[in-house]
Amino acid sequence: MSKTAEWIAVDWGTSNLRAWVFGPDNTLIARLGSDHGMASLTPDAFEGILLDLIGPHLGDATTPAVCCGMVGARQGWQEAAYVTVPCTPPGAREATYVFANDPRIAPLILPGLQQTTPADVMRGEETQIAGYLAEHAVFDGVLCLPGTHTKWVQISAGEIVSFRTFMTGELFALLTGSSVLRHSVQTEGWDDAGFADAVRDALGSPQNFASRLFGVRAETLINDMPADVARSRLSGLLIGLELAGARAYWLGQQIAVVGDPILSRLYKVALYQQGVPVALADGDAMTLAGLKTAYKSLKET
Amino acid sequence: MSKTAEWIAVDWGTSNLRAWVFGPDNTLIARLGSDHGMASLTPDAFEGILLDLIGPHLGDATTPAVCCGMVGARQGWQEAAYVTVPCTPPGAREATYVFANDPRIAPLILPGLQQTTPADVMRGEETQIAGYLAEHAVFDGVLCLPGTHTKWVQISAGEIVSFRTFMTGELFALLTGSSVLRHSVQTEGWDDAGFADAVRDALGSPQNFASRLFGVRAETLINDMPADVARSRLSGLLIGLELAGARAYWLGQQIAVVGDPILSRLYKVALYQQGVPVALADGDAMTLAGLKTAYKSLKET
Repeated sequence: MSKTAEWIAVDWGTSNLRAWVFGPDNTLIARLGSDHGMASLTPDAFEGILLDLIGPHLGDATTPAVCCGMVGARQGWQEAAYVTVPCTPPGAREATYVFANDPRIAPLILPGLQQTTPADVMRGEETQIAGYLAEHAVFDGVLCLPGTHTKWVQISAGEIVSFRTFMTGELFALLTGSSVLRHSVQTEGWDDAGFADAVRDALGSPQNFASRLFGVRAETLINDMPADVARSRLSGLLIGLELAGARAYWLGQQIAVVGDPILSRLYKVALYQQGVPVALADGDAMTLAGLKTAYKSLKET
Repeated sequence: MSKTAEWIAVDWGTSNLRAWVFGPDNTLIARLGSDHGMASLTPDAFEGILLDLIGPHLGDATTPAVCCGMVGARQGWQEAAYVTVPCTPPGAREATYVFANDPRIAPLILPGLQQTTPADVMRGEETQIAGYLAEHAVFDGVLCLPGTHTKWVQISAGEIVSFRTFMTGELFALLTGSSVLRHSVQTEGWDDAGFADAVRDALGSPQNFASRLFGVRAETLINDMPADVARSRLSGLLIGLELAGARAYWLGQQIAVVGDPILSRLYKVALYQQGVPVALADGDAMTLAGLKTAYKSLKET
């Protein structure tokens, strides 16, 4: 028999849904997931999808479901308006409460963040930031959250001061999956030296980015560059270009990289090349810590 | 009744096939086309596709079909080995002769060009260059051939000295068609000021490319940037980044842009902003001029 949830933590992104079911005293009862991401759903579908997933764990009482991510976008379940930086990481007080047809759940969606100048937005990462700051209360410096849309976030005195987004991960996915480079980078292999050289090249002369991309293809065609080198080089060109643009965020700053461990390691290596040491934290763990912090703030309101 | 061809000019690219049928004295008899591009064909399919298209114009004699483009790639009809720069534009002497099963045609494929350092390749543009130089014999300067993979080509004393490829057009297609920006740029509209500002931004600080891309999305979401401005800005960021990397090719040089008229105009505007006047030439016309030049060299061999 399944145990009854006290609350549910939900990370509902563009392409995936993940839920953690907690009993009393934050005991983890179940870790659930599905590929019903926000992008594949119309607003009226969200409640049923969530109930299908967590239903077995619901009791007679109304169970809060604390959600973060693209579920709160305009095309999501219900829009959760952005909070504008500078601000502390948003919690239950700033959440949008969704009316559910099933009385067993009370969903709330944490808002994303926006910045007016230069215009920028995030949804989901603010919860990872909240988690990181809950575990590192005295952190003053910069968080880097690598991914599809990598975020660089300046933190001071517990506040999110400013941030900047780079489309690095999405460019990598498009270039490896759909561009002419796809013929050159089909491998699971990796080459540290190819990555390091490319980071250096891109940091040194970012203006050559679009020609260096084609250079990866040309090196394959006429100099038989191996696929693992080509793939590592492409990754290095993208991360190096990002580091060139994010220089003000990492130069002379205390840095923590919060994300997928494999991707985070690449940022660590690239920044270490520049003489910048970084701390690492697991992105999923920080998402969960942020959702727990939001649930705690819900109980205190 | 269809007239009999003396020779056929064929531009066979990745996604399209175009053929011009010429009678005696280079009289144009027919202009033909299909969407049977090289990417959709196996090597044994090329002959049949070409015969389907030009068959009605073939007589009893063997008709030369002078081909350029990706038809000569490793995955094409038959590989036409690259000629290495510096060199004069390749003609019939450097062509690869394909054995056709049908005795009515004698296909030859013009080679592409390669550069050893930095590694680079082209297939198809070399024929446009040949066409431009046939019509402008005394040209000394730089040709820019914008497209999926834009080429900048240094010409001196009738030779192709060096060139550099930028993946600008392919990035534009991926970003407008498949990235998160697709939601922001759905329009046929255009905004000259948005384009010009973005060219300036990208030329001034190319390192911010990946964050400016996301900025287009953010401006749409929080400041309601219109789609025509967003699309023009995206185009300007890409062309500006390219111009930043190609500076050595255009600064203080005589420039001609050879390509699609609408795209070429954007390069003209962007370069004019930098105080660089450019001549324009139609890309299709130059392809045909180049194929005619190759046919002439065939008759002279």
